Amino acid sequence: MREIFYPNSVAVIGVSTSSDNMGRGIVFNLTEFGFQGIIYQVGPKGGVFAGRRIYKSVLDIPDHLDLAVILTPARTVPAILEECGQKRIQWAVVESAGFREFGEAGKKIEEEIIRVAAKYNLRFVGPNCIGVINMENGLCTPFPPLRRIVRHGDISMISQSGGVGMSVLNLMGNEGLGLNKFVSAGNMLNIQTEELLSYFIEDPGTKYILLYLEGIQDGRKLMEVASRSTKPIVAFKANIGQFGKAIASSHTASLSSNDKVVDAAFRQCGIIRVHDATTLGNDLKILRLPAMRGKNLAIISRSGGHAVIAADACEMSGFSLAPFPREFLEEVESHFRASVIKLTNPLDLGDLFDLDIYLKIIDRTLAQKGVDGIVFLHTFNAMMEGQKSRDLFLQVIELSKKYDKPVALYVSTEDQEVNYLKRNLNYPVFTQVVETVRALGLNRRYHGEMLRIRQPKEILSFQVDEKTARYLLEKPHLEKRDLLLHEAAEVLSIYGIPMVRGAPVPDEKEAIKAAKDLGFPVAMKVISKEISHKSDVGGVQLNLRSEVGVADAYQDMTRRIRQAYPEAKIEGVLIQPMVTGGRELIVGGRQDEQFGPVVMVGLGGIFVEIFGEVSVRVAPISRGEALEMIDELRCSAIFKGARGMKPSDLEAVAEVLLRLSQLLCDLPEIREIDINPLRVFQEKEGCLALDVRMILGKD
Amino acid sequence: MREIFYPNSVAVIGVSTSSDNMGRGIVFNLTEFGFQGIIYQVGPKGGVFAGRRIYKSVLDIPDHLDLAVILTPARTVPAILEECGQKRIQWAVVESAGFREFGEAGKKIEEEIIRVAAKYNLRFVGPNCIGVINMENGLCTPFPPLRRIVRHGDISMISQSGGVGMSVLNLMGNEGLGLNKFVSAGNMLNIQTEELLSYFIEDPGTKYILLYLEGIQDGRKLMEVASRSTKPIVAFKANIGQFGKAIASSHTASLSSNDKVVDAAFRQCGIIRVHDATTLGNDLKILRLPAMRGKNLAIISRSGGHAVIAADACEMSGFSLAPFPREFLEEVESHFRASVIKLTNPLDLGDLFDLDIYLKIIDRTLAQKGVDGIVFLHTFNAMMEGQKSRDLFLQVIELSKKYDKPVALYVSTEDQEVNYLKRNLNYPVFTQVVETVRALGLNRRYHGEMLRIRQPKEILSFQVDEKTARYLLEKPHLEKRDLLLHEAAEVLSIYGIPMVRGAPVPDEKEAIKAAKDLGFPVAMKVISKEISHKSDVGGVQLNLRSEVGVADAYQDMTRRIRQAYPEAKIEGVLIQPMVTGGRELIVGGRQDEQFGPVVMVGLGGIFVEIFGEVSVRVAPISRGEALEMIDELRCSAIFKGARGMKPSDLEAVAEVLLRLSQLLCDLPEIREIDINPLRVFQEKEGCLALDVRMILGKD
Repeated sequence: MREIFYPNSVAVIGVSTSSDNMGRGIVFNLTEFGFQGIIYQVGPKGGVFAGRRIYKSVLDIPDHLDLAVILTPARTVPAILEECGQKRIQWAVVESAGFREFGEAGKKIEEEIIRVAAKYNLRFVGPNCIGVINMENGLCTPFPPLRRIVRHGDISMISQSGGVGMSVLNLMGNEGLGLNKFVSAGNMLNIQTEELLSYFIEDPGTKYILLYLEGIQDGRKLMEVASRSTKPIVAFKANIGQFGKAIASSHTASLSSNDKVVDAAFRQCGIIRVHDATTLGNDLKILRLPAMRGKNLAIISRSGGHAVIAADACEMSGFSLAPFPREFLEEVESHFRASVIKLTNPLDLGDLFDLDIYLKIIDRTLAQKGVDGIVFLHTFNAMMEGQKSRDLFLQVIELSKKYDKPVALYVSTEDQEVNYLKRNLNYPVFTQVVETVRALGLNRRYHGEMLRIRQPKEILSFQVDEKTARYLLEKPHLEKRDLLLHEAAEVLSIYGIPMVRGAPVPDEKEAIKAAKDLGFPVAMKVISKEISHKSDVGGVQLNLRSEVGVADAYQDMTRRIRQAYPEAKIEGVLIQPMVTGGRELIVGGRQDEQFGPVVMVGLGGIFVEIFGEVSVRVAPISRGEALEMIDELRCSAIFKGARGMKPSDLEAVAEVLLRLSQLLCDLPEIREIDINPLRVFQEKEGCLALDVRMILGKD
Repeated sequence: MREIFYPNSVAVIGVSTSSDNMGRGIVFNLTEFGFQGIIYQVGPKGGVFAGRRIYKSVLDIPDHLDLAVILTPARTVPAILEECGQKRIQWAVVESAGFREFGEAGKKIEEEIIRVAAKYNLRFVGPNCIGVINMENGLCTPFPPLRRIVRHGDISMISQSGGVGMSVLNLMGNEGLGLNKFVSAGNMLNIQTEELLSYFIEDPGTKYILLYLEGIQDGRKLMEVASRSTKPIVAFKANIGQFGKAIASSHTASLSSNDKVVDAAFRQCGIIRVHDATTLGNDLKILRLPAMRGKNLAIISRSGGHAVIAADACEMSGFSLAPFPREFLEEVESHFRASVIKLTNPLDLGDLFDLDIYLKIIDRTLAQKGVDGIVFLHTFNAMMEGQKSRDLFLQVIELSKKYDKPVALYVSTEDQEVNYLKRNLNYPVFTQVVETVRALGLNRRYHGEMLRIRQPKEILSFQVDEKTARYLLEKPHLEKRDLLLHEAAEVLSIYGIPMVRGAPVPDEKEAIKAAKDLGFPVAMKVISKEISHKSDVGGVQLNLRSEVGVADAYQDMTRRIRQAYPEAKIEGVLIQPMVTGGRELIVGGRQDEQFGPVVMVGLGGIFVEIFGEVSVRVAPISRGEALEMIDELRCSAIFKGARGMKPSDLEAVAEVLLRLSQLLCDLPEIREIDINPLRVFQEKEGCLALDVRMILGKD
């Protein structure tokens, strides 16, 4: 893929002498950015532009071509690619629009392009994109004329929208962040996001990677590629709403929306997700600082008000404002005009006007073992203190390097001075206090998680009779229906997931007999191919304490179901002993379109969907991940024994998640599994599935 | 207070000929901002500065003085104020620092200042502030030398931090927002925030009010003043963490933190609260647009990617992307190059390059009845389309006025052009898509809530025997203890709040007798002055089904309490019948230090504190507010009958809240009330307090 970014010669195809020709914009940009290779121009009408001949076809060019950049009407692209193939051009950027995004005709042209490219083994970016930029050699192929708004740097970006890509370049320019390479990926007919990402991970000029994604084609591939990266990857994943609209047929599906899976997957492979452009810019800035290795923050501020705002934000970002040690305070007290400094953390520098003292205080603060990083809030008047402040910042930057601890720098001053600092300091400058602290929290979290992600991941494999489990799926599959309750229970049992015993029986008489055998009280659940949401139609009857109770419940259940679903055939009922004690969770999983099998755990009960108290992971998961999933639930404190409760057996829950993870990976035919509730008993006493649903893929 | 902002003559006290004298900064600013009155300089050493005499005392000035601005060492301030008093100066701004913020000595000086000011009826802002600005007449008294970074406009600000105030002025300057007046309130020894707010509400030059608050002295007063305002008030309230640290002695206290009360109070009186500077700027911008009167938003975007991001944000902000009507689409189709526009909402203008067509589309979109507002996302190249885009914006602004509907404008272009637009368009310009949509959501919410707040508020008053209730508090008050369970139950009963019957009995024998009378099963709860968290020590025993059960429970309870609290005296137990059915809420209230009585309702059960599922209001509340409190709980859907549940009697809950509101207003001696749980039955079947705690104020 190197040729796309480092071509020695480029053919710009779609140039004419007409003044509204857009291909000329590409030539303009290549010139403006100082492209170091040879530029050829191609257009069917020929002529001359910018002192260069316009060739009628690439075939007429008497030179080898590394890259073709095509911006011609969609219908002409297949023939042009054919000529490129004949000319042995191996790499192309197709910027033309008018393909699948405008209906059937466009889709047909796409198919043809794919065919031609395959024939010549020609690889291309696009179509429907704005092109490629490489700041190292001045390759700049977008057609809208650009100025050099962004400086040369070490951040590379892949954008699935040209417009958003351009906005981000504006933002980077304003923030003083340097660009290395940029690709607008377009319709991704040939070269995909994952392949570009893989290139940037290896690319020596790229140190930070930025993604703007509207869709994910191969989630597993993306995770696999991203996991290999030692470079931070920040992704803005949009197009959330569309996903949300998919109809959910089970709790698991509604609780583990595609967007939640994206969150989980990104976290599992170390991609930092952002939801807006400001956060994106600030995250890119904060990652350039040394790692914040602990939670002990020192706030040093010139204004008391800013210190107050920063301290508020600390609580939200999980930082501690560790009190400064005695000796440090004594040092400050003896050396500086301590009478105007309040000797606490946040350290309000108050009316101290000597910036040299600021520097000494920052130095002594960074030197402390109990301090992992500093937020330095500096408000100044550019007219009076501009130069002194610039000097101070340069020295603070050196201190941050020397101690290998982050100093997040917030400045409040006139905007011209802010812009100067952003463009010239080569160090992140923040202009919003809350964001400064939040971003530093991201720095800490990122470095912590990367340590964890780089650990080799151990996936346990349980001995199970996968063959029998698969055999159990055959009949439902043939009958194009989901698993009946007792069938699903059997699959669980094969995978070693404990479920309450139960006897499937065909009628009322057998139900009473089974209840006597199991011992009262019992629960009764309907078995019917047509009924999936049993409890909504009285299909679950609990706490039946006698033979009469069972008989009445059976009658009531069949009557209500006949009313609600006249066409439903009742195959029988499942009789289970009532289980007392414990707390309820919901666990489950499903096959995600982008990421494959995912597992989920959440708080059970009727409020589950309201509080959205679930955690999700892409399977397979390690034991550590299973425990982490449980930890993530805010309600886990209760399960762990907060407020005088007896601790629950969360080890057993973790094991259920691991077995479920294996089940979903082994049997992708199962589209969704809902274990609801999973009753969790006290420590060492295990857990028990009380009900389960398994939905098969319908293809 | 007009004199503070419109003085004809100002004495700057604290000016010297020394080059590091800070008082000179004040004179510099008055000159720089073109102050239209007469400037006098005062300093003990006399001399000349800036072509003006430095008087040794205000008493030497041969002229009447409207305003004194004082910046001298703290210890000199009382004597200076004394002279001001003698000179009959009625208004002052004391900028000097070194008062209570630096300990006891400073506090003593403050007391003296208060005394002198009272003697002469002299009113003053400060001390420990950076002064006052009025852009109308060039009054600019801060001491740090300022440039005219902010233009003259209609926004006035009160800031409890000088540093944060200056940062906000920088922000306003950058965003092109115009300032009318600014006050740094400092230690507020004399003139308080509420009084300044009241002035700005009446001030003709002020159309929007901005507050930066670190503390609230008189919350009720603030609410009363703010409620009168027809001008939007935006408040950044910081110093949250400090509040959070107060020790909570009941669920109610921990669930209704001071910060939640601030949220509720602001909402009740129409103050818009923000938590960071960016939101503050954007909210000030969006409120300048016409009101968004419904939830139907149209997104018009030049880039598909930006449209996707905006659509995502719509879901979060509660907007609907209503489909465009047939006729509109037909019109667009027939008039414009429809082949490149996807005719949906969001409307992606795609490759349409003629900006005149954009204008026509925006016009036709605003004309539609089903559209309440537009987000227009315009990405352009300033070099190529700068002038055309400026013209387009000016016309769009006219359209927004003509149709009286908001058009929120997002631009992505080079930063110089963005700055030009912000400073010259006199119309809000946003540079972040998500923020644009969020802010428009605020516009809609604000205008909706203001309509509601302007409705006269009807407070029901229930006939209760307040005297007897107060009498019941006397004994516990004398004994310096909280109310015992049966005492609290009696107070509830006087206020008409239904509670489960119960018999307080002294010993095991009487307990058994009471249980037989009430009928099994029963609950038993300990009565003891020393035990407040009963259930933690086995002091609550439920579901006792027989005489033996009651006896065993009594023994078990007393044994466990003797172990946990050897010093506790058990006065007896309360026997209550067990109540079955219904769902649990927690209701309560407390006396807030800033805002007085507040009421609270939340989801009951063990997860209540984890999910923080509560809503709070400052009492007294109207019936509408009580219902709104319940509606605010995410779990209210379940109580209203979601997912096949029978609806609960929420009318009865609202009545409990109203009666509780009256109780807390009538009896401020009660510091906290916890009704936990309140069992709520099905519609028309009411609700019942099962347990209650009342904590008295300890003074």
